Amino acid sequence: MHKLKVGILGATGTVGQRFVQLLAEHPWFEVTALAASERSAGRTYKEAVRWKLDSPIPDKIAQLPVLEPKPDLDCSIVFSALDSSVAGPIEEEFARAGYAVFSNAKNHRMDDDVPILIPEINPEHLKLIELQRAQRRWKGFIVTNGNCSTITLCLALAPLERDFGIESVLVTTMQAVSGAGYPGVPSLDILGNLIPYIDGEEEKIERETKKVFGTLRDQKIEPHPMTVSATTTRVAVLDGHSESVSVKLRRKASLNDIKESLRRYAALPQELKLPSAPTRPIVLREEPDRPQPRLDATLEKGMATVVGRVRACSVLDYKFVILGHNTLRGAAGAALLDAELLAAQGFWK
Amino acid sequence: MHKLKVGILGATGTVGQRFVQLLAEHPWFEVTALAASERSAGRTYKEAVRWKLDSPIPDKIAQLPVLEPKPDLDCSIVFSALDSSVAGPIEEEFARAGYAVFSNAKNHRMDDDVPILIPEINPEHLKLIELQRAQRRWKGFIVTNGNCSTITLCLALAPLERDFGIESVLVTTMQAVSGAGYPGVPSLDILGNLIPYIDGEEEKIERETKKVFGTLRDQKIEPHPMTVSATTTRVAVLDGHSESVSVKLRRKASLNDIKESLRRYAALPQELKLPSAPTRPIVLREEPDRPQPRLDATLEKGMATVVGRVRACSVLDYKFVILGHNTLRGAAGAALLDAELLAAQGFWK
Amino acid sequence: MHKLKVGILGATGTVGQRFVQLLAEHPWFEVTALAASERSAGRTYKEAVRWKLDSPIPDKIAQLPVLEPKPDLDCSIVFSALDSSVAGPIEEEFARAGYAVFSNAKNHRMDDDVPILIPEINPEHLKLIELQRAQRRWKGFIVTNGNCSTITLCLALAPLERDFGIESVLVTTMQAVSGAGYPGVPSLDILGNLIPYIDGEEEKIERETKKVFGTLRDQKIEPHPMTVSATTTRVAVLDGHSESVSVKLRRKASLNDIKESLRRYAALPQELKLPSAPTRPIVLREEPDRPQPRLDATLEKGMATVVGRVRACSVLDYKFVILGHNTLRGAAGAALLDAELLAAQGFWK
Amino acid sequence: MHKLKVGILGATGTVGQRFVQLLAEHPWFEVTALAASERSAGRTYKEAVRWKLDSPIPDKIAQLPVLEPKPDLDCSIVFSALDSSVAGPIEEEFARAGYAVFSNAKNHRMDDDVPILIPEINPEHLKLIELQRAQRRWKGFIVTNGNCSTITLCLALAPLERDFGIESVLVTTMQAVSGAGYPGVPSLDILGNLIPYIDGEEEKIERETKKVFGTLRDQKIEPHPMTVSATTTRVAVLDGHSESVSVKLRRKASLNDIKESLRRYAALPQELKLPSAPTRPIVLREEPDRPQPRLDATLEKGMATVVGRVRACSVLDYKFVILGHNTLRGAAGAALLDAELLAAQGFWK
Repeated sequence: MHKLKVGILGATGTVGQRFVQLLAEHPWFEVTALAASERSAGRTYKEAVRWKLDSPIPDKIAQLPVLEPKPDLDCSIVFSALDSSVAGPIEEEFARAGYAVFSNAKNHRMDDDVPILIPEINPEHLKLIELQRAQRRWKGFIVTNGNCSTITLCLALAPLERDFGIESVLVTTMQAVSGAGYPGVPSLDILGNLIPYIDGEEEKIERETKKVFGTLRDQKIEPHPMTVSATTTRVAVLDGHSESVSVKLRRKASLNDIKESLRRYAALPQELKLPSAPTRPIVLREEPDRPQPRLDATLEKGMATVVGRVRACSVLDYKFVILGHNTLRGAAGAALLDAELLAAQGFWK
Repeated sequence: MHKLKVGILGATGTVGQRFVQLLAEHPWFEVTALAASERSAGRTYKEAVRWKLDSPIPDKIAQLPVLEPKPDLDCSIVFSALDSSVAGPIEEEFARAGYAVFSNAKNHRMDDDVPILIPEINPEHLKLIELQRAQRRWKGFIVTNGNCSTITLCLALAPLERDFGIESVLVTTMQAVSGAGYPGVPSLDILGNLIPYIDGEEEKIERETKKVFGTLRDQKIEPHPMTVSATTTRVAVLDGHSESVSVKLRRKASLNDIKESLRRYAALPQELKLPSAPTRPIVLREEPDRPQPRLDATLEKGMATVVGRVRACSVLDYKFVILGHNTLRGAAGAALLDAELLAAQGFWK
Repeated sequence: MHKLKVGILGATGTVGQRFVQLLAEHPWFEVTALAASERSAGRTYKEAVRWKLDSPIPDKIAQLPVLEPKPDLDCSIVFSALDSSVAGPIEEEFARAGYAVFSNAKNHRMDDDVPILIPEINPEHLKLIELQRAQRRWKGFIVTNGNCSTITLCLALAPLERDFGIESVLVTTMQAVSGAGYPGVPSLDILGNLIPYIDGEEEKIERETKKVFGTLRDQKIEPHPMTVSATTTRVAVLDGHSESVSVKLRRKASLNDIKESLRRYAALPQELKLPSAPTRPIVLREEPDRPQPRLDATLEKGMATVVGRVRACSVLDYKFVILGHNTLRGAAGAALLDAELLAAQGFWK
Repeated sequence: MHKLKVGILGATGTVGQRFVQLLAEHPWFEVTALAASERSAGRTYKEAVRWKLDSPIPDKIAQLPVLEPKPDLDCSIVFSALDSSVAGPIEEEFARAGYAVFSNAKNHRMDDDVPILIPEINPEHLKLIELQRAQRRWKGFIVTNGNCSTITLCLALAPLERDFGIESVLVTTMQAVSGAGYPGVPSLDILGNLIPYIDGEEEKIERETKKVFGTLRDQKIEPHPMTVSATTTRVAVLDGHSESVSVKLRRKASLNDIKESLRRYAALPQELKLPSAPTRPIVLREEPDRPQPRLDATLEKGMATVVGRVRACSVLDYKFVILGHNTLRGAAGAALLDAELLAAQGFWK
């Protein structure tokens, strides 16, 4: 099988580096184009990037030229790790020109005709693509993944929503610095400290979660009626967002029901054995002091939500602590899984 | 005025050091006795302690001998920073022998006849002292302060309880390593990491809070009916516990009502101008990214709860982030304020 | 006595904030003007600054307007915390216009007619001021302080140079993140990490140290012939630069001689009792595990070099570990002490 | 080929966990016995260990029983990760009983008849084994690896010693917390701090380095005459010891000579292609800001010394910064490579 040609927009940033790392040995996709801001364009990737991952730059990508983010790239799919300050119009330009755009940027997530795709949860939202193309007269399209904290949360909620129904969710996040990109959070702000605020993050969690679980009806997504209340904080962790979650359910469930629901959870990406799909989308830990970012963030290649401390909540119904890898399942890995789902469904055949 | 002679039990530990620091220049109290475990006894304080505070050991205390924690100390008041593994019987022995014991240990907090005193909130609980003495045939008595996270939380809840009534509280804490004493949390566990569990801490917050706000009736404290649900985590912060709090109120209140209630709050210690009392027991911050442990933990000499990010909660009623200094108002400073209240009420006149 | 009017250039940055903090209650100086980049100009200090110190913004300064850094400020002395990208010409402009400029920037440090003043070590270098004014036809002048690591090192070397002569110095620094300003070091670079490189820092230490200990002869400073070799690294510390130092001396000295030399050291600022002078410019610690940034950086108000672990070196003669507060004695405090020396010598009488 | 049966002494500690991780899939060795202190004995490995690595406990080892460290283990080779407080006599007992003991403990390193083996540098020191057995009347023997900082340093010095001769070495280390085991360094001591002292570490580096490079003559090792002076510090890094090194050489060498010497270095383990041998025992980095623990410690599976910032030193001859993984090449990996060398030389055939 010929591999599909893919490009990376914003290839030099923190999330862009993850795309490079994940795509270097991908069985279905081959990186044939890299683009970044004008400042980087014209150099090789190795020259342009300030590589911050602890594995080396993949050889086959190190010498690729960095191009400008314009729709004349030699590929049919682009993964966008562009900063939201520029992502909006660039992604549209690519979609208009016929590219399949899988975007990690927030810009189009809440557009009525753009899905926030989590392949385990809402594959049927992909039907919006046809609508999107028709309405916007685009040859290509945009599919987004959710915000990093949102994805981590939604995966944990998915089996509970399916089995018991969710009425409300109260979540406090403790997010890693890599979520803010590079240079991102100044060390003077976070060393021995905690910042109880991440600009715009709470609104994203509250709105995106309701859209992810929304119902496609009459060519639009009706948000799920659950109530979501979020507080987001930044902590001195490198990778891995932790979230303290309390939920109120629609139907009664015992503690054991809840654990079984989480433990057994599997969905379409697992059935299709998508290359980036976690074997277990939820890893349930029973030890009292887990999940921990340093020890658990890369379980299942960083593509699962790790859930621990499941117990009754005296105010709502149940509470637990969850952990997701913010630049793997929370960003680059999420977009990759989205593209794999379309590929598996024969989109590019 | 002659100063009252006070002793410190467990004087070499993390909280013991704070007692030493706070009492060195106290206007009403004078440290005349230090006690610690047998291992330390027989040495001077300077020799016995592994001093971890960034101010030097006070000169007048450095040369005091460290004694065994037996009730033949030359003082009438003792502050107990003993580890809970030994605090129980030792504190009882001192109370029996006639000492006024102000304890930071958890051992007696939930005893029916022992108050968990927060002078701003429940000074009337001191009436338990007479009962305690009568029942136990003690010449002295034990007064406890709450757990560090509990105190920080209760101070923030106090004006809301007074003005609107509290129905339920959902709290996620992010606690500093100094709360675990020394050696406490291993660096291998917390560097670049977060531990979503502190043994016994959630139960303390849930039970102590209800007792602090409880009503003294028929010589016992009826716990407040509010529901409290806590998740406690440890983060890589030195001093200062942060807490993300959501509350449901009994009576309707606007966001402005809430802020006014917090801002105007003052109580008995402020009226009495107790030496360790904060001018403002609650410091309300309006900046979006506060409170932060490194910048705000020592406001009001570390004796206030700093409240920020007050806003509506879509699941309960209101939510905010609070911060308290865990070894000042959350431990040594709390016990000190308790003793000052009794002194101001003429207890030792 | 009327206080002297002083201004701060670059008042909103990390070092500028230290100037504000140190000058707020100064007995001889009064802040009457604040200047910063155009971006900040026109706002009050409180509005313009992102305050990062753990004491609040001094009330009397919070409402001062931030002006542009042009020589029409209402003061006769300016302290410059300007970034080196702009400090050069601005400082010259102020000096030309008659201001006494005390600069923390590197730009003019190595100019032949500009002293790098450390009042304990080279007060006679102030004679360059007359030369500078004559040569440049300036009404004012520029006096610089050394780089933060340089000052910390020079203070420790001063008694050894005076008593035994220094032939060579080999130093490895472990520097705090506050030395890089704000936003400065990205947290992604330093959390759980160490960066073995600080751009330009090694050259500064090597050249400035020789100038500080240089001899004023024929109206210029002949660098001291000592050899200095530096390696500079950045570590996850907030405040306080540590340095591992080995020295080769010109004259024989016993370990005890070395310790006595360090312990007894005092110089002109101590004699004159300058307001910011440390009582002991060198604090000698005998504990095996000191100095430590968190515990020792603010000894003597952060104006001393703390020296520990003094012992024989089998390759050179002696070795020790030193610590200095990089934004106090290493920056704002240094410039302040320089100005105090001139004031004490009657310069503005 | 049948795999050789190996046991791990001290299997539950930090270094023991690395042995487990490295041996789980080893091509020549198979773990058949685990031993630890009495406290752990009687439980399965999974129950007994507080696993701190970010890969899961290998399945085949998780269920092995933890035995007492007595010489009736079912294996012919033991790797010792025992704490030095107990390692001495236990290792002797095993050697006496016929086991080949590869020890990471310091206890026997400086014994006259025990080699500190670094297979790249001193494979001929293995001749001591015969002497050791004869003298001590042991059926087995003890081979040690050096201290973590020593190994990292020696690897970087090896090509320079071979090509130019080393006269003296001045080194300052900045060591990771994992080097102190678990619980090891309290977080209160190291968060935002640096400790300029590690008990006994400097002596180890100074003495072991001279022994590693020593000459076997008349059945004993004559220490190398080089002078070594070390200062050791602890920093807030998880894994990877950094060292700032200056060297004086016996023969002249240009900067380019030095770099070529480092770059081309390979030795016996590379020729023999030992399973744990790094392809490049030294990785030379030319970027100005490398090596960094977080980015470089696991290069070459953590078995190389990474060298960067090679440049002239004005006090000695050349200086550079090096990095080694303290629990891989600096501990478990070192002992493993030692055993592989013996296996490759046909010792167990």
